Amino acid sequence: MRILILGGDGYLGWPQALYLSKQGHEVAVFDNLARRQFDLKHGFDSLIPIQTVHRRIERWNQLTGGKQIVNYHGDTTDYNALSRAFQEFQPEALVHFAEQRAAPYSMIDREHAVYTQYTNVIGTLNVLYAIKDFAPTCHLVKLGTMGEYGTPNIDIEEGFIEIEHKGRKDILPFPKQPGSFYHLSKVHDSHNIMFCCRIWGLRSTDLNQGVVYGPGTYETELDAELATRFDYDQIYGTALNRFCVQAAIGHPLTVYGRGGQTRGYINIKDTVRCIELAIQSEPKQGEFRVFNQITESFSVNDLAERVQRVGNAMGLNVKLDSVPNPRVELEEHYYNAVHTKLLDLGLEPHLLDDAEVERMISLTVEHQDRIDQRLIMPTVNWRKADNVVEPTAEVATNHR
Amino acid sequence: MRILILGGDGYLGWPQALYLSKQGHEVAVFDNLARRQFDLKHGFDSLIPIQTVHRRIERWNQLTGGKQIVNYHGDTTDYNALSRAFQEFQPEALVHFAEQRAAPYSMIDREHAVYTQYTNVIGTLNVLYAIKDFAPTCHLVKLGTMGEYGTPNIDIEEGFIEIEHKGRKDILPFPKQPGSFYHLSKVHDSHNIMFCCRIWGLRSTDLNQGVVYGPGTYETELDAELATRFDYDQIYGTALNRFCVQAAIGHPLTVYGRGGQTRGYINIKDTVRCIELAIQSEPKQGEFRVFNQITESFSVNDLAERVQRVGNAMGLNVKLDSVPNPRVELEEHYYNAVHTKLLDLGLEPHLLDDAEVERMISLTVEHQDRIDQRLIMPTVNWRKADNVVEPTAEVATNHR
Repeated sequence: MRILILGGDGYLGWPQALYLSKQGHEVAVFDNLARRQFDLKHGFDSLIPIQTVHRRIERWNQLTGGKQIVNYHGDTTDYNALSRAFQEFQPEALVHFAEQRAAPYSMIDREHAVYTQYTNVIGTLNVLYAIKDFAPTCHLVKLGTMGEYGTPNIDIEEGFIEIEHKGRKDILPFPKQPGSFYHLSKVHDSHNIMFCCRIWGLRSTDLNQGVVYGPGTYETELDAELATRFDYDQIYGTALNRFCVQAAIGHPLTVYGRGGQTRGYINIKDTVRCIELAIQSEPKQGEFRVFNQITESFSVNDLAERVQRVGNAMGLNVKLDSVPNPRVELEEHYYNAVHTKLLDLGLEPHLLDDAEVERMISLTVEHQDRIDQRLIMPTVNWRKADNVVEPTAEVATNHR
Repeated sequence: MRILILGGDGYLGWPQALYLSKQGHEVAVFDNLARRQFDLKHGFDSLIPIQTVHRRIERWNQLTGGKQIVNYHGDTTDYNALSRAFQEFQPEALVHFAEQRAAPYSMIDREHAVYTQYTNVIGTLNVLYAIKDFAPTCHLVKLGTMGEYGTPNIDIEEGFIEIEHKGRKDILPFPKQPGSFYHLSKVHDSHNIMFCCRIWGLRSTDLNQGVVYGPGTYETELDAELATRFDYDQIYGTALNRFCVQAAIGHPLTVYGRGGQTRGYINIKDTVRCIELAIQSEPKQGEFRVFNQITESFSVNDLAERVQRVGNAMGLNVKLDSVPNPRVELEEHYYNAVHTKLLDLGLEPHLLDDAEVERMISLTVEHQDRIDQRLIMPTVNWRKADNVVEPTAEVATNHR
């Protein structure tokens, strides 16, 4: 199948490209390289070194005896660039990762909030029109987030919920309570996509993914030059990745507030498989499906304690520290998210075990010379409208 | 109170400015004149002649013995312009009409869909940041639409619904099923505003307004130079306004499909009062309220039959015609929308009676020389992604 991966150079997009290529699909990536630009602008870098998209693709080609990945440089907000990729590659499935993907990024200030919603909402509108214009049977596999739901006091269903109200019933979109301008942009996308399935008969699977952890997949770990990025900073680093880095350098684990914040999690190895499962089980024209793409749930405290226990057993001296929560969120709450649809399709989860945590900590120890300690502490506060990304020397040293 | 009206030159914004000025408030309008630009671009015009914003304001000043309305020309997507208005005028309440407001406009093609969501979503993000930056206690009164809800098979509540699910309960945002890129943009806005009330402690009233009808208010009718615009075209004209024009010129009333489509309606005279009621009953900091701003519900057939009956009694020969529905919507459905909050605050509705319909038809007869028959039939089809706004001569004459 011809599969176009929007955002195919990113933390998840690149491993996805390799995985689908390995499975025998014709793969193209389309990326504006915005994530790399952010690092260049601020002087940050991935913990694990990564190659240019050109070199990555070349190396994959060498190692696999000739597998090709087509490379498009472009931005989804540029309809001409997007149209060219559609017309040339003629995708049968589209995996859409090409969005500003960090909640803290979206909360920096007005410019970053606007950038986030512009890129994500307008970019996805363009994607929908490109499908309608050039590939109306193409299956849109869209990455959403579990954060769209927020933390309601009822079980979270997969996209829709049957509501009985005043003696009548309907099945309606699950009410959303997103917690950042980023999460909001994903809710906007979901509404836009659902609408286009209804009016134009497009077909889409909206994957509400949990927090992804892990340094790579079987494919990215074949060779150092195939590695995907590993983020540990306050903007792009997710909780478990960050805790492992903190453990490796002897920084107290930065638990935000009381640490009872519970979320769904997924190993990056399962992400690539979930998307394959979504692609294989095609929706009908006009169908809009929602899968919750998580395998288990943890509180922040669960993760911190796990990293502490494993780290200490490795001879590290891991301490926990509660830092003022930069986010506005409930720190103790009910959380139970249904996630059976991908299991029903055949997902066999890589659940989080101590061996995986040890592997992650070892990896960060191995690359500890590359760790920039300025990136450990959060500076982006949800309550403020004018945050800075680059911490001052004072902020950074205070917490060493 | 100092009240800034974003979109204060529009069909509703202008009457709102006059009404609040009459009530003794200090009023400023902020408008990019986009609605007038559309007419200039396509060669369309309001049925009732309207003056420039400068002349309108001058005339109001003359007739009221010196009441001032401050005039800002600016676009909400231009943060500098918006900031200047906030800093100079220091609003205590903000009435936000400054959005692309037509569902058919948003469905013309990709450019118009993108323009709609960009203007509305990014513009409103800017408004939220401007409040946070310059006027954090300012009460945001935001115009939404009943179309955000779609037509669920349960009663529509005012913004929130208590859901009991698997033995647990929560009060959650009412699930939305908007029916155009325009309606979607309003849903996006509502989510963004709710979030900013939560994280920053802003306060807002989100008014889900029904379809507005009527040629003006007591204030706009004081003098011909104070008139507000009256739209009867397929893009901006709402159902009752359009039917009255069709009746006046002997064109069969264009009922879309089966005509069972039921919506909430409100007289423009009640709109201006509802917004005053919202402003008077201030929400607490951090509060996000939703009122359903309608006074009664009608199906398209109800309205067509009413116009036919009244028109025939006036000696016109009014015929009904079912035209293929250009929209994708249910043509027979359950509809019951709760709308008690504004009544509780003191709204005394101007319900639709035959006298009002007769008045509207008479007005259109009076201005029938200004009616452009090319604008009567719908050309913008929801199922297509590349509609044209200006009908060909053939389309127009076919239906005369």
